[in-house]
Amino acid sequence: MAPSIGNAKKFDTNDVIISNQNINESSSDFLYHFGLDKKADNIPSYFHDVKFVCCGGSSKRIGHYAKIFAKEMDYETPTDLSKSDRYCLYKTGKVLWVNHGIGAPSLSVMLNEIIKLLHYANCKDVYFIRLGTSGGIGVEPGTVVISSGAMNGELKQEFNQWIMGKKVSRPCFVDEKLRFELIETANSLNIPQCSGITLCADDFYEGQARLDGAFCDYTSQDKFKFLNELVEKGVRNFEMESTCFTALTARANIKAAVCCVALLNRLNGDQVVIDKNTYLEYEMRPFKLVTTLLKNKLK
Amino acid sequence: MAPSIGNAKKFDTNDVIISNQNINESSSDFLYHFGLDKKADNIPSYFHDVKFVCCGGSSKRIGHYAKIFAKEMDYETPTDLSKSDRYCLYKTGKVLWVNHGIGAPSLSVMLNEIIKLLHYANCKDVYFIRLGTSGGIGVEPGTVVISSGAMNGELKQEFNQWIMGKKVSRPCFVDEKLRFELIETANSLNIPQCSGITLCADDFYEGQARLDGAFCDYTSQDKFKFLNELVEKGVRNFEMESTCFTALTARANIKAAVCCVALLNRLNGDQVVIDKNTYLEYEMRPFKLVTTLLKNKLK
Repeated sequence: MAPSIGNAKKFDTNDVIISNQNINESSSDFLYHFGLDKKADNIPSYFHDVKFVCCGGSSKRIGHYAKIFAKEMDYETPTDLSKSDRYCLYKTGKVLWVNHGIGAPSLSVMLNEIIKLLHYANCKDVYFIRLGTSGGIGVEPGTVVISSGAMNGELKQEFNQWIMGKKVSRPCFVDEKLRFELIETANSLNIPQCSGITLCADDFYEGQARLDGAFCDYTSQDKFKFLNELVEKGVRNFEMESTCFTALTARANIKAAVCCVALLNRLNGDQVVIDKNTYLEYEMRPFKLVTTLLKNKLK
Repeated sequence: MAPSIGNAKKFDTNDVIISNQNINESSSDFLYHFGLDKKADNIPSYFHDVKFVCCGGSSKRIGHYAKIFAKEMDYETPTDLSKSDRYCLYKTGKVLWVNHGIGAPSLSVMLNEIIKLLHYANCKDVYFIRLGTSGGIGVEPGTVVISSGAMNGELKQEFNQWIMGKKVSRPCFVDEKLRFELIETANSLNIPQCSGITLCADDFYEGQARLDGAFCDYTSQDKFKFLNELVEKGVRNFEMESTCFTALTARANIKAAVCCVALLNRLNGDQVVIDKNTYLEYEMRPFKLVTTLLKNKLK
């Protein structure tokens, strides 16, 4: 192990690492939630040039992003390579586009299978970026929050797993260089941005102290006390995947960043009430930001 | 509170209960992840007759189920009522069909919004049934596991939430009468069934002691020791939603059951390797079982 760069452990290689001694070069593998077979679908040769993986919750949005990016880059219109309806998967040159659904468990299934895919394809120097939507905390709607770290519901910057009855905590790492590049790019595009900690909740309602779910045992006063405590800790938005995303990518020697547009400021309410055109414009901000950076890197 | 029936707390009503004092008759509400507005979409009048909500992870499968059920019942072919791509929603007479994606966080978003929808519609005596796929533990592929309880990764029959920095544990309840009806119906249809505890994991790989994920720090021996411990505790399958499903429905005064077909026996392997026709036949078993019961109840 070489010394750390940014916060993350550094491996003595730029490969995508599989930390699993049961898997080797000759293993057959069926990536069940994509319906892809390592051999039959010729994964190693088809995906060998991938450098960037862009992720988000919604399959429709990710498909939309992939198609616009292809058009902007003058690539052929990509088709969904996934043979399962669980996740979508598009390839535009060196960039993959894949959705992960809502929440860490759904994301972890995707990450395990895409990390294996990239490993089988012998990809090097891979970056993962999550482009999502989120609830801002003390930031105006439309601001893109570029995560400086990811915090769980316990208010710790770690991702917890239960493995064979025991709790295992994994540290969360955001790639600092990539984060600064995203901040600079946002500024150059005049996209309102803010860098801060992202709270990764396990649900949309009680886990994010909303007052408008089917269940709520706390008061409005409790909610605002909690939100203000989060602001003091440097938390700038809520979403539901960032701890898992930044922990599992780091384990695989992949550099990661998270940039999510705030659809509302939770200090002003709980419901997402913006009109459709505003929503569509906000939704494109992480895309514009990330693809501007990717185009520079792909030059 | 009246005395308990089965394991669940009994409310002195058959209404769907919203445990949230901030929500009342006159509140406006936008069910964000379905794109449905309480008033504009006339939720109270459109959904008032719902008695059963059938759920599963995959939107494609749920849409397929809804359409077959409509055909069998001689109803019009249902269309997707959801205005968001996050979840699908079909209505066939008194039965709703809705998907929940993968994992408890994704499920909890759907449950919060559908429970509010049913409450606004003033529905009474509502049953939720999860029809899914799973990994059997000591049961043969094709067996439908009818859950007698739901256990989390900590091996406790409870659903844990983090609310404003504090851990809250909710008990999990399966409706005993509904469970026995499902067992009897399976037997009458000669569908292989087994009733036992379901382990709800937060991921598909390490959380289910698989050896074929991108990460694995344990040995094959550790895995089998754990699986055999689970068999001794009465666990018969792994999936990723049952604790949240049985805990949140009980909080809302809804009776719930979970029946998932086992796609493999984890004591024999980790990969799902059945051929497509076998998969399609297995996938229909929970549907046949549940819709046979529903048809009897709807008579």
